[in-house]
Amino acid sequence: MNQIDLNADVGESFGQYQLGDDAALMTAITSANIACGFHAGDPGVMRRTVALAANNGVAIGAHPGYPDLVGFGRRDMSLSAEELQDIIMYQIGALMALARAAGTPLNHVKPHGALYNRLADDAALATACARAVAAVDQSLILVGLAGSELVRAGRAAGLRVAGEAFADRAYDGRGRLLPRSRPGAVYHRLEDVLRQVERLAREKSVRTAQGDLMEIEADTICLHGDTPGAAQMATAVRRHLESCGVRVAPMGEWL
Amino acid sequence: MNQIDLNADVGESFGQYQLGDDAALMTAITSANIACGFHAGDPGVMRRTVALAANNGVAIGAHPGYPDLVGFGRRDMSLSAEELQDIIMYQIGALMALARAAGTPLNHVKPHGALYNRLADDAALATACARAVAAVDQSLILVGLAGSELVRAGRAAGLRVAGEAFADRAYDGRGRLLPRSRPGAVYHRLEDVLRQVERLAREKSVRTAQGDLMEIEADTICLHGDTPGAAQMATAVRRHLESCGVRVAPMGEWL
Amino acid sequence: MNQIDLNADVGESFGQYQLGDDAALMTAITSANIACGFHAGDPGVMRRTVALAANNGVAIGAHPGYPDLVGFGRRDMSLSAEELQDIIMYQIGALMALARAAGTPLNHVKPHGALYNRLADDAALATACARAVAAVDQSLILVGLAGSELVRAGRAAGLRVAGEAFADRAYDGRGRLLPRSRPGAVYHRLEDVLRQVERLAREKSVRTAQGDLMEIEADTICLHGDTPGAAQMATAVRRHLESCGVRVAPMGEWL
Amino acid sequence: MNQIDLNADVGESFGQYQLGDDAALMTAITSANIACGFHAGDPGVMRRTVALAANNGVAIGAHPGYPDLVGFGRRDMSLSAEELQDIIMYQIGALMALARAAGTPLNHVKPHGALYNRLADDAALATACARAVAAVDQSLILVGLAGSELVRAGRAAGLRVAGEAFADRAYDGRGRLLPRSRPGAVYHRLEDVLRQVERLAREKSVRTAQGDLMEIEADTICLHGDTPGAAQMATAVRRHLESCGVRVAPMGEWL
Repeated sequence: MNQIDLNADVGESFGQYQLGDDAALMTAITSANIACGFHAGDPGVMRRTVALAANNGVAIGAHPGYPDLVGFGRRDMSLSAEELQDIIMYQIGALMALARAAGTPLNHVKPHGALYNRLADDAALATACARAVAAVDQSLILVGLAGSELVRAGRAAGLRVAGEAFADRAYDGRGRLLPRSRPGAVYHRLEDVLRQVERLAREKSVRTAQGDLMEIEADTICLHGDTPGAAQMATAVRRHLESCGVRVAPMGEWL
Repeated sequence: MNQIDLNADVGESFGQYQLGDDAALMTAITSANIACGFHAGDPGVMRRTVALAANNGVAIGAHPGYPDLVGFGRRDMSLSAEELQDIIMYQIGALMALARAAGTPLNHVKPHGALYNRLADDAALATACARAVAAVDQSLILVGLAGSELVRAGRAAGLRVAGEAFADRAYDGRGRLLPRSRPGAVYHRLEDVLRQVERLAREKSVRTAQGDLMEIEADTICLHGDTPGAAQMATAVRRHLESCGVRVAPMGEWL
Repeated sequence: MNQIDLNADVGESFGQYQLGDDAALMTAITSANIACGFHAGDPGVMRRTVALAANNGVAIGAHPGYPDLVGFGRRDMSLSAEELQDIIMYQIGALMALARAAGTPLNHVKPHGALYNRLADDAALATACARAVAAVDQSLILVGLAGSELVRAGRAAGLRVAGEAFADRAYDGRGRLLPRSRPGAVYHRLEDVLRQVERLAREKSVRTAQGDLMEIEADTICLHGDTPGAAQMATAVRRHLESCGVRVAPMGEWL
Repeated sequence: MNQIDLNADVGESFGQYQLGDDAALMTAITSANIACGFHAGDPGVMRRTVALAANNGVAIGAHPGYPDLVGFGRRDMSLSAEELQDIIMYQIGALMALARAAGTPLNHVKPHGALYNRLADDAALATACARAVAAVDQSLILVGLAGSELVRAGRAAGLRVAGEAFADRAYDGRGRLLPRSRPGAVYHRLEDVLRQVERLAREKSVRTAQGDLMEIEADTICLHGDTPGAAQMATAVRRHLESCGVRVAPMGEWL
């Protein structure tokens, strides 16, 4: 039977600032990637988001990013492998403490934004990241772009790894996401999104921007949380997958 | 047999900035309070300080502070009980991850600076802090000023607690430290320091600024690390205590 | 003829985070207090807010706060007079550069949040703040709670000062705002707000929570920008004042 | 008559942390580049450094950097041209206010660290930086690596520009600094430093690592402040230049 995890980036509010409708999203997803205070989130937001996830039976993961609140972790930074390891461990630990306080385990780690993109192709930094995760807790699942260096590095570090695909993004022929600046890079029509998630879950493939079918070993599909209508989209995706006979469940159940 | 722990605040460097001679201090102390990035320290400094402590057989503790790098955590801030709990848990977790990665346990938590002083007398915030520590890890030792609200709150939260005394500070009649602005508040002569630590370890008392003897239930004595000659002072204190027949050991051995 | 300035705190977005509907507010107010990056705002938000104000003919002021993004400058901090002066000058200068780049002058300074409240009653810090403003630019107008220490200190520093009153807040018998936690502290009904602003502008007085009339020397009235319906409320206030024959104009025109 | 400016990066302390011996350096240099709180420095350090420079008759400049205290502005970041302009204007303004409060003018702007290196070769960002400086104050001198894109962009923006050379760094055949990781990249012997500064001041050239003489249009020479013996080195450089008949003076006198 086909099965898939649905994840979203949550806990990206900060202090007085609200971002995303986490409460609505939580009813649709199975894994929550919680910002850890470097690119978004603060200790209070993290605690409340952990509680929200736990109350909805959603698996909790750390979503570490570059130390760049103004840029929301979307601006690349030149960090050494050691600096990267240190900030990954720090952020995972911070969230782990809040999860422990809530009596709920930490399940996975998914890097954020510009760091996520960097780790898709930079083998040395991907290795550093994977080792940092393994050093903190060998039982954590490392989530990276399906087919990326990060997934490879996670396996090499002895971690369970989850390949991630995107519900609403077009792929190029290498299995990388088309830059947002390119026309057609983001699917806005529900039917396009549903077609892609169904193909990902049932056939482990996507149709690329060139029109070819390409295999993608995806364990989890990322749903966006910070766009208007995000929660409805997430709910529609989940219902559609279930109606197709796909089991939607936290990836820890099979990885 | 009398026994006492010797602690110091370490890991207070930041980025390019060096503070204190942690390597020298580590040979004299038995417990290290490691800054967690809010008032001092950064993920790299934390990792290196954890390694240094582990290599010297020094017990590792978290030293959480207010979020105030410019003020070094020495300026009081009005945080709610909830905000305080959140930043305590966050900081403990961050250090815990780095300790786990180094294969060494986290032993204790000692609040820093203006927060430490606030928690000596503010019962509600002391309770919040103690509960935060207990929520993350019930086995952690909470360190607070001997006789303070924080020590009381730690006990009420079911934690092991350690009362702390100061080697080089004068006490008032209530068992609180004389403000640094007062003449005689800080002992600069080695003989005054040695007399105070000996009395603390052997008689569980101090002579107050008024000249009276006052009982102080101290499990650990704080040695300062950021003054010139700090490491030599620490070594002299340890040798003197051992020559008096006092056992100097990590507090976790008897608490 | 009666005349009054209408001000609002704007430019409180940060990075990815949006706060308030500044564009709508700008059509109603005559003075804009722009956050300077310490409690809210960032260099890009500041530049865009300066441009928005300039395009609407709204006078531009700096809105410096405590260095506390997570707490939005609403948590009191213990700063020395010197530390306060330094952060006031720094923040004014940062905004002044962006105003110069936009070819528009900086008109006033109004402290934010917990700092504003602290400066209403702490004479020493109010003096430090006023001197800092005067040191940067003697022609700036200092805005403080009408009747406060800050207003007094501004006069003593040789600055033009503007007493501020609040459109939607109840006053106690001392001319201080009723804490928000008290019932009736905030007026939610438009008619209550309009009655208060009319009285402030035409009779230079408010009716206190005790029911007495009290004189308030207000040059400017603060309208809130971050509540639902804020812009409509601001527009209604302006129209009502103008329909009563009050001239609504930037305070620099008569101070 | 040959004339040259001697500059150093100062005001790089932060909060409790001391860096460099600015007081000693100030007696040797003619221009001070003062950190503006993004990569180093804080409002109090800035104020004290402005006063120190003014008291020593040293010309004051802003030394803006990336927003990265942990990395000391030495890690490259991907900022847009607009983001760069905004942080340059913000930092210049902050220092300008402190200079105004001290009654001393702001003379120049020199970008710091990774930003300085980026602006040597990235024409688009160099243009953004130059325009930001010009927008704040058309009379400021822009300092960049001699022969770099920043110098070119400064001229195009109508600014006075100063080409900078380094007293203790080896040059490659393109007029760029040899990376510090390369052997021989940094001159440690006083005689090598004196030979280079003399050639820069008298012949407007350097001998490259390949052994060729290359013209360098340097108006100012950078002396390092954060290495042991930095102040003595600076003094020796100044004396040597003066003994060779070179006039050492602030660059504003001839630019």
